Amino acid sequence: MRIINNINEMHRLSVESRKQGMILGLVPTMGYLHAGHMALVTAARKCSEVVVVSNFVNPMQFGPNEDYSKYPRDMERDNSMCGEAGVDVVFCPSAESMYSPDTSVSVNEDRLSKVLCGASRPGHFRGVLTVVAKLFNIVQPDVAVFGQKDAQQVRVISRMVRDLDIPVRIVVHPIVREPDGLAMSSRNTYLSVSERKQACGIYKALQAAADAFKAGQRSGPYLVDCVRNVLAATGLVCIDYVSLVDDATLEPVTRVCDRAVLLAVAVRVGKTRLIDNVVLSPCA
Amino acid sequence: MRIINNINEMHRLSVESRKQGMILGLVPTMGYLHAGHMALVTAARKCSEVVVVSNFVNPMQFGPNEDYSKYPRDMERDNSMCGEAGVDVVFCPSAESMYSPDTSVSVNEDRLSKVLCGASRPGHFRGVLTVVAKLFNIVQPDVAVFGQKDAQQVRVISRMVRDLDIPVRIVVHPIVREPDGLAMSSRNTYLSVSERKQACGIYKALQAAADAFKAGQRSGPYLVDCVRNVLAATGLVCIDYVSLVDDATLEPVTRVCDRAVLLAVAVRVGKTRLIDNVVLSPCA
Repeated sequence: MRIINNINEMHRLSVESRKQGMILGLVPTMGYLHAGHMALVTAARKCSEVVVVSNFVNPMQFGPNEDYSKYPRDMERDNSMCGEAGVDVVFCPSAESMYSPDTSVSVNEDRLSKVLCGASRPGHFRGVLTVVAKLFNIVQPDVAVFGQKDAQQVRVISRMVRDLDIPVRIVVHPIVREPDGLAMSSRNTYLSVSERKQACGIYKALQAAADAFKAGQRSGPYLVDCVRNVLAATGLVCIDYVSLVDDATLEPVTRVCDRAVLLAVAVRVGKTRLIDNVVLSPCA
Repeated sequence: MRIINNINEMHRLSVESRKQGMILGLVPTMGYLHAGHMALVTAARKCSEVVVVSNFVNPMQFGPNEDYSKYPRDMERDNSMCGEAGVDVVFCPSAESMYSPDTSVSVNEDRLSKVLCGASRPGHFRGVLTVVAKLFNIVQPDVAVFGQKDAQQVRVISRMVRDLDIPVRIVVHPIVREPDGLAMSSRNTYLSVSERKQACGIYKALQAAADAFKAGQRSGPYLVDCVRNVLAATGLVCIDYVSLVDDATLEPVTRVCDRAVLLAVAVRVGKTRLIDNVVLSPCA
């Protein structure tokens, strides 16, 4: 496995691989890898001959009062996990090499990025899109694999790919969960033992709504209340949002009809902001 | 010569050419080609094996009160000029295929694009960068050739290429002028006979400042006044800006020291807005 810090070196390797006709798969991560990331690597492996994992905590997607500086990092452990998983290249550039002091260009999305997490994290998706555009230009992947846990991120990135004609296929991998249902996240490491116990209430809450949906419930407010009630019963009262939106447009849905909807949650457990979601498909 | 309307077909041709190891050069234009454009084609020919001319009047870079609908178009004449010049591919997509009705992603530049033309044409460079990013993704050129006439555009695009790590080399071609000095522009066609005569005052004004500079004058206000005086003497009073800025950063310069400066003009001749510029290099 090669570990590459240098942007030009990464780009040259990609160009070389593609010249040889190899399919290149990228798994963009912010490191502190867990089984969720490794599932993305497996998915990338299935559809590509060279698997690149980028490991970069992107300062541009963190707000001034967010956890950029204390975001968990363990590059050595990450690299050994990637090595064991058969990753071909780990790309881990420095923040300084990724952003010039006078950097002034960004990629913006005006619609899908304004709701859900975008509403409480202004500038977040601008940072995400800009770094993903950069990574795509540097690595030139044929395929990029993202996790459904960051459902809005996937939708916003797919929109960028469509609107800017970026020649990358986006693959979305289902959420990987802990045995008790908590969605895997590098931020779970922030949780105390009691917070960790409480956190599994998020999935229970989503499941309660999914069960109601399966039983025929189609009212948006009812499904949202299902989630809110279970969260409240678990003591999770610091809710950023519980939203039922169209799975493609992310527009609010008051009644589920023939299109799939996304039921998405952001909640603070102690000081840690966690997100989770479930897709409800009327046709499934 | 191939004429391609379809985005996917253009992309496939580019991928195929690059697989064969060919160097691909792109000349992005809005059509209504003139000798200035053809000089860009010649420059592209010199450094690439496949020359693509894109011919697309980009609605996104026109303001609501600008000349998008009446911008001159003559695709047949353009194609025959490209054919004679040995262009390999003309790419002329429709506006509908380039922009979905719910398009929501754009590329923005926050610094260089805010002065000069950007100050009076809000959203213009957002439109330029977005369409150029799209063209780069579709055509995947090794080299793209732009004209120095749109000096700010070149600087803003070069900044995008740097900040988004776009693997395209930008070549800038000197301004091509009519015998009387007027910078070639598709918009010159708007000019009446008397306006056309008046318009050559723009270059005369820039030359007056360039002469003063050659004679040792280094004061920003003095050089700007040189331009303004000649413009006024020619009856060109509808001035958008006459600015002396650093050639790289586009920041205002009050005194020329050791760095090259850009002396740039935008002026209205009748209803037609024309731009021109000259670079003054203290070392040259």
